Amino acid sequence: MAPDKSVPAAAAFAARSTVEQVEEGLALAPKFDADGLIPCITTDANTGEVLMLGYMNSEALQRTIATGEAHYWSRSRQCLWRKGSTSDLVQEVVEMRIDDDQDAVWLRVRVAGSGASCHVGYRSCFYRSVELGGPSGGPARLVITESQKSFDPKEVYGDAPNPTQL
Amino acid sequence: MAPDKSVPAAAAFAARSTVEQVEEGLALAPKFDADGLIPCITTDANTGEVLMLGYMNSEALQRTIATGEAHYWSRSRQCLWRKGSTSDLVQEVVEMRIDDDQDAVWLRVRVAGSGASCHVGYRSCFYRSVELGGPSGGPARLVITESQKSFDPKEVYGDAPNPTQL
Repeated sequence: MAPDKSVPAAAAFAARSTVEQVEEGLALAPKFDADGLIPCITTDANTGEVLMLGYMNSEALQRTIATGEAHYWSRSRQCLWRKGSTSDLVQEVVEMRIDDDQDAVWLRVRVAGSGASCHVGYRSCFYRSVELGGPSGGPARLVITESQKSFDPKEVYGDAPNPTQL
Repeated sequence: MAPDKSVPAAAAFAARSTVEQVEEGLALAPKFDADGLIPCITTDANTGEVLMLGYMNSEALQRTIATGEAHYWSRSRQCLWRKGSTSDLVQEVVEMRIDDDQDAVWLRVRVAGSGASCHVGYRSCFYRSVELGGPSGGPARLVITESQKSFDPKEVYGDAPNPTQL
């Protein structure tokens, strides 16, 4: 198979030489964790709402930069994951940021279709707030923050395995 | 030493029994990773800007819920970390969210003092954007997004070790 020219083969990232270079430098030198992943916060470019926290491996990060569409590494399916391949809810990247020590990515995106990003059917994966306060003698209570789901997961995903793991 | 009554001793979180309960239930049942940590996205409650990605252990999560001030687990210092203890840049929690499979937290906060949250001195840890586009033959270039630092790290942290690790 011919190499995919959309992803550069070598020197995609700078080496991490010094703390000063990582924090103040102007070349992307990401730090992947022991599993080869970097966490990625994805927010709605219009509303600022946090949609999801995903993970990227080196290839997903390179493909996101090269194509301007969000790619992740699916930890449940253990494969490269172009967001929206199944659901058509593609995430167009408006801006990508990297943090101080370059071990976290922030994507600001525009979502296609219904604008939802959560496999449960909600717009955001963060559709429940946690009640704050003192000790109550039991687990903190959650409150649903979205009045209804944006789509029916059964219609979109059919019988595909649920990615949530216990 | 007497137990700290601000944190409940037992049953702080619900057990994770079924996927449906985790995704649709109304009791907090967080999933900590192999290191006992859960990632936490922290955004500015006023602007929506992502300030940082931190990590919480069970105690940090419980203390954040109980006190309404953001607590994290410092991976570099390996200790519980009440944000602002050194810098006075305390994060008051306006809202806490949990995601679909309950393995990520989102905090919306109001930051005290200068409003900054980054040890390098910037408001947000995500003070650099990544240039998108096709292959360039080298690492992606970064662009500084904040015109100046909010504080001088040397004045605030003195000779404390830099948390960035290579």
